[in-house]
Amino acid sequence: MSLFDQMVVYGMPLIPKFIVGKVARRYVAGERREDALRAVRELMEEGAMATIDVLGEEVSERAKAEAAVEEYLRLYEMIEIEGLDANVSVKPTLLGLKIDEDFCSSNIERIVELSHSKNNFVRIDMEDCTTTTATLGIYRKMLERFGTEHVGVVLQAYMRRTVPDISDLLDLRPNIRLCKGIYRESRAVAWKDFDTIRSNFIYALKKLLRGGAYVGIATHDPHLVWAGMAAVDELGLEPDAYEFQMLYGVDPPLRRLILDAGHRLRVYVPYGRDWYPYSTRRLRENPTVARHVVKAMLGIGRR
Amino acid sequence: MSLFDQMVVYGMPLIPKFIVGKVARRYVAGERREDALRAVRELMEEGAMATIDVLGEEVSERAKAEAAVEEYLRLYEMIEIEGLDANVSVKPTLLGLKIDEDFCSSNIERIVELSHSKNNFVRIDMEDCTTTTATLGIYRKMLERFGTEHVGVVLQAYMRRTVPDISDLLDLRPNIRLCKGIYRESRAVAWKDFDTIRSNFIYALKKLLRGGAYVGIATHDPHLVWAGMAAVDELGLEPDAYEFQMLYGVDPPLRRLILDAGHRLRVYVPYGRDWYPYSTRRLRENPTVARHVVKAMLGIGRR
Repeated sequence: MSLFDQMVVYGMPLIPKFIVGKVARRYVAGERREDALRAVRELMEEGAMATIDVLGEEVSERAKAEAAVEEYLRLYEMIEIEGLDANVSVKPTLLGLKIDEDFCSSNIERIVELSHSKNNFVRIDMEDCTTTTATLGIYRKMLERFGTEHVGVVLQAYMRRTVPDISDLLDLRPNIRLCKGIYRESRAVAWKDFDTIRSNFIYALKKLLRGGAYVGIATHDPHLVWAGMAAVDELGLEPDAYEFQMLYGVDPPLRRLILDAGHRLRVYVPYGRDWYPYSTRRLRENPTVARHVVKAMLGIGRR
Repeated sequence: MSLFDQMVVYGMPLIPKFIVGKVARRYVAGERREDALRAVRELMEEGAMATIDVLGEEVSERAKAEAAVEEYLRLYEMIEIEGLDANVSVKPTLLGLKIDEDFCSSNIERIVELSHSKNNFVRIDMEDCTTTTATLGIYRKMLERFGTEHVGVVLQAYMRRTVPDISDLLDLRPNIRLCKGIYRESRAVAWKDFDTIRSNFIYALKKLLRGGAYVGIATHDPHLVWAGMAAVDELGLEPDAYEFQMLYGVDPPLRRLILDAGHRLRVYVPYGRDWYPYSTRRLRENPTVARHVVKAMLGIGRR
């Protein structure tokens, strides 16, 4: 099978692993916990905050989910010991959502419990549309038990259900990361065109902010960064009432611009050995993916 | 050096002077004061108002700045003698901003003082980002001394600082010309994409109007003309609470449309011998710049 065939089989860009590996270095702090902690310290020197993610998703063995829980618990210890301005982000499928929802919920509860005891915060990541209802159910349980200061979730502007989901959650004063969404979804569940996703992001953002939610405005789209700044200006919000969020390795000059404008900014810092699916999504999203791939194939290194 | 090389050196289109000269006639009333006064009379016959600008910028000799002040003072005399519906626009760098800020401030003060005694108005133009802070400082001083009816300034929608600048000024009920901005600015200080600049223009305009500022809505972008008309309709403003503004030589049919819709319109009329930098910026902004240049090179005249 030729390289081209590998890339287009099933209509998806299946990018050869050695190429993803070369460019993954840009989007992933490294394979070890210490790599993530070092990245967080560097971000703090820039004036940014962080949320740390242990890479991995969709485990089918309970032992793997439990190992991930242990890794998250150690991570909170290290954040406390090193005095880092960081919380963590967890993926429900890594914590066993596809094995058993109650098992996943109790794994997340162990993490939120420790985080709560350390006065820290857990962000429950959102994955593809097969996980949305279960993830929001787990979030609601955690919120009721630990309070909105200790746990948050993610809503994706490309999902048709996001505005109704906001209506359902808003009375709870939720803590929401709002992003566009990056999984491949069908037209049945997701808005597909660029302008509509942008407009829905802005609409959802204003609905959340007006309703008193704390929002992590998670975008690298300069127009949505502008829209976020305009929305918080219009509502007269103080800088501690929201935050901008960006991914590790994406557009560091934009980080600087947001911080210099007086906003808080949190960077999503993933680490671990299971970097392939995360990095592939990042690559697919990147408009310069072709350049990355060609450069990697030609062995032209970058950072 | 070939023509192409001249145009791309330093990454800027350095357009040969003889070409700029041919097309400058479109954007500049002429080299003499009388040319500007004639242009204003013609505009008044159309139902428009004017603001007259003496061309020139970034002087390094005090004598040149002082000569510009004298020219402005004579201009106010002529406006009064001829009964013209015109005020003036001044560029701080022509009045010595790059020599010494206090020198520039006292030059501007002489102009505002005379203008005030004749119950007229001075618009302090905004230039590139190196002048913004000083220009706003001078504006604030003049506003405090002479009142908001006698002096105004300009804010540019492409600048990242514009919305916070509005927040700082709004309590003073400022008189603001709002334009997109035409200088070449870096991403560090300016929004770069078309849609965001448009959105920021509309956001800034509404913030100003709601806050009770008098706004000169300075644009040739039909979408922003629409947005300006919608904003003043939404707020129920009388036609003397704002004005539209356009540049001499740009889209005369649009002038007619704005006037016929019952809005006030002021045309920026520049004159003088130092037409090269102004006309080059106009040319660069014009989407049909290539056509202009080619026509001029082929000797195909246009008035």
